[in-house]
Amino acid sequence: MDEFEAVVEEIAARVVPDTEERERLAGVAGRVLAAAEAAVDDLPVAADVVQVGSTARGTWVSGDRDIDVFVRFPPDLPRADLERYGLQVGRAVLPDGHEEYAEHPYVKGTVEGFDVDLVPCYRVADATDIQSAVDRTPFHDAYLSARLDADLAREVVLTKAFLKGIGVYGSDLRTKGFSGYLTELLVLAYGDLRSFLAAACDWRPPVELDPEAHGRRSFDDPLVVVDPTDPERNVAAVCSTDNVARLVHHARVFLADPTVERFDPPAPTPLDAERMAAELDRRGTTPFALRFDAPDLVDDQLYPQLEKSLAGVAGELDRQGFDVLRAAAFADETAVLFVECEVAARPAVARHDGPPVWVGGHAAGFYDKYAESGDVYGPFVDGARYVVERERDHATARSWLESDALFGVSLGVRVEDALREGYEVLGGEETVALAGEFGADLARYFDPRP
Amino acid sequence: MDEFEAVVEEIAARVVPDTEERERLAGVAGRVLAAAEAAVDDLPVAADVVQVGSTARGTWVSGDRDIDVFVRFPPDLPRADLERYGLQVGRAVLPDGHEEYAEHPYVKGTVEGFDVDLVPCYRVADATDIQSAVDRTPFHDAYLSARLDADLAREVVLTKAFLKGIGVYGSDLRTKGFSGYLTELLVLAYGDLRSFLAAACDWRPPVELDPEAHGRRSFDDPLVVVDPTDPERNVAAVCSTDNVARLVHHARVFLADPTVERFDPPAPTPLDAERMAAELDRRGTTPFALRFDAPDLVDDQLYPQLEKSLAGVAGELDRQGFDVLRAAAFADETAVLFVECEVAARPAVARHDGPPVWVGGHAAGFYDKYAESGDVYGPFVDGARYVVERERDHATARSWLESDALFGVSLGVRVEDALREGYEVLGGEETVALAGEFGADLARYFDPRP
Repeated sequence: MDEFEAVVEEIAARVVPDTEERERLAGVAGRVLAAAEAAVDDLPVAADVVQVGSTARGTWVSGDRDIDVFVRFPPDLPRADLERYGLQVGRAVLPDGHEEYAEHPYVKGTVEGFDVDLVPCYRVADATDIQSAVDRTPFHDAYLSARLDADLAREVVLTKAFLKGIGVYGSDLRTKGFSGYLTELLVLAYGDLRSFLAAACDWRPPVELDPEAHGRRSFDDPLVVVDPTDPERNVAAVCSTDNVARLVHHARVFLADPTVERFDPPAPTPLDAERMAAELDRRGTTPFALRFDAPDLVDDQLYPQLEKSLAGVAGELDRQGFDVLRAAAFADETAVLFVECEVAARPAVARHDGPPVWVGGHAAGFYDKYAESGDVYGPFVDGARYVVERERDHATARSWLESDALFGVSLGVRVEDALREGYEVLGGEETVALAGEFGADLARYFDPRP
Repeated sequence: MDEFEAVVEEIAARVVPDTEERERLAGVAGRVLAAAEAAVDDLPVAADVVQVGSTARGTWVSGDRDIDVFVRFPPDLPRADLERYGLQVGRAVLPDGHEEYAEHPYVKGTVEGFDVDLVPCYRVADATDIQSAVDRTPFHDAYLSARLDADLAREVVLTKAFLKGIGVYGSDLRTKGFSGYLTELLVLAYGDLRSFLAAACDWRPPVELDPEAHGRRSFDDPLVVVDPTDPERNVAAVCSTDNVARLVHHARVFLADPTVERFDPPAPTPLDAERMAAELDRRGTTPFALRFDAPDLVDDQLYPQLEKSLAGVAGELDRQGFDVLRAAAFADETAVLFVECEVAARPAVARHDGPPVWVGGHAAGFYDKYAESGDVYGPFVDGARYVVERERDHATARSWLESDALFGVSLGVRVEDALREGYEVLGGEETVALAGEFGADLARYFDPRP
């Protein structure tokens, strides 16, 4: 057994569910399915019940306690009826459950210590005919179930554990990493964890896989895995370039030097105010933080809005010459747009280029406007153009952040609302106050290794 | 008489030589030519004597006191003989004169209060056969003399006066403006000052004139006037884009509102230390000055070297992020490279982009180098690339200016020599010490209107 196999065996002992866990889960799932089928029998329409997801296929990581059950209705059933019948079945199976809302409302509850989702969907003929995203799930399940044996399932679990360990597992819009379905397709494609990692070492994005060789459009993504159940869909669409690059990095490092720690890295020690002050002092930058009450949104809505807002604010500070070294958004009770500037203040004047002197009326208009203002240096001639040095709107990053001009940049809608309610600007050393709420985020910020 | 004509009449009275000035000059020139011809008769070779230049053609600006006399030798005369005989004639005509050196040595002296140059050249058959640049002058003189009558000569004088007034007259390498010959060709082309200015208002460089329609190559200059005596030569080659733009500007403004002041602008009041401090305070910039002993060079060598050095220093400061707003070189007893920075200091760390993670050995080499150094932040992944934040070589502009790294940029040879002998770095408020020696230059710098 080589070093790779030794590490993987040690990890497998932890993450691959053992017989006892499998039997226990199968028992609970069987009782949930039976209850759901009984409830379906009381409905005035025909419907069937399927278990889906990693616990249906034996590809869950030990300790996951999610059982997903879908109730499939005829595609011509009105949506209101589907929702009503779906909740009726859910409440029958999970009397202590509560409603949640994805594309339809559904019921979430617990059975014998397991988290159970009971979700209604349409039983369409083909995955390309879906009426909502959840309708696709049973097709994914059927495709994988037909192809995964126990050995492959074990490799899927190990691969998920690897991707979790390096921080790129999850297709939520905060992580923007590898979904469970994507991971299973990659293992199917490459055969096992080791072959997958060896292949990733040689990836040069864009990388395209098309297991059913039926893709019929092109995608502008670093990783493309054409959905075997839908030729129009890239299963890896959400996966960011950063995360593909991180996978390539960790695959290379792990194959060269396999360690258990890559699956299970130590959590960083949260940064305290004193260590943050020391980092800022060492870096010599000027950070600014916009801090405001976090909008009450699920993560999949909150993080895209924070990122859009951060890009707007950091982009504008950069354009204004406050040169942004790095930036990040954090959210907990409060939300923070953290922008680390290389330049905190600029001169009172800024160069403003006018038109070439020989562009007739436009040039004369520019010259006359400024020649009469008296508040500028120039207009003078530089090369072909008129140029003036005129007063900057904001000589400091703080001045801009504290002004209404902030709302001139592109912001997430709910972030903009929250900012209009009020925000605090912290600058330089003041930002160490963030270490309390965001010590873990800041630890990663100041130690950003992949 | 319209406003334009009224202004021009007033200027003409000052700048167009009157009959008395013309007769006086003709008398002196006649005596110089006669003396030169007598001296030529004593030589063992055949040579002739011609008066050239604006005083030969009646196109000088009143008060100019330059008489240029060329002695033309057969083209097969060895260069050493040409120089020897040339100096012999020069010393005979100008016994109190002294030698100077352009392409050949020649004699410069005064006769009855006029400055006389006595220059040897070759009498070649065609301007394209010249052996040195001075051989061309008699061809220029012949071309213009055959075409300029008294009316055109008056327009040439007025045009020269206009170009002087707006600061663009002179083909020396400090001014990089319009030579006398170029001015005369432009007046020949357009007919008079007014038509020339009206045409300039419509110029959209590159502008090309070819009076003899014999040009046979292309030029990469904003203004091209093909030499009527040499189809390969652009008479306006030295004229900078700035100066063409200035002409267009002043032509437009003057035609719209003719004033005597445009021919005769008031000299700026030299800036004193107190006013300079006020300007710096208003601008909020951080200027730096490198001050050193001016190399002992003629202006046509000194200024190009200073400009090359300024471009090297300012360009590197800009690249390092000390964002240069404007820069200028001054020279008197000392020489100064003056660079006005928008940013005087940057953080201790700077971003350094590595290769894309998937560029095999190169990426691994980058990662391993920095992962083991411990002195950097990262390597981390940003998009496709490895990135580190590592210590900057120079966190302040002053630190770089005071280091040997200064000599890593492109500098004029004699400027580099002078800097190696020693230099002083003035920063911020310290630069007001320049106001003593360079008050006039600084006044133009801080009031840079065209």
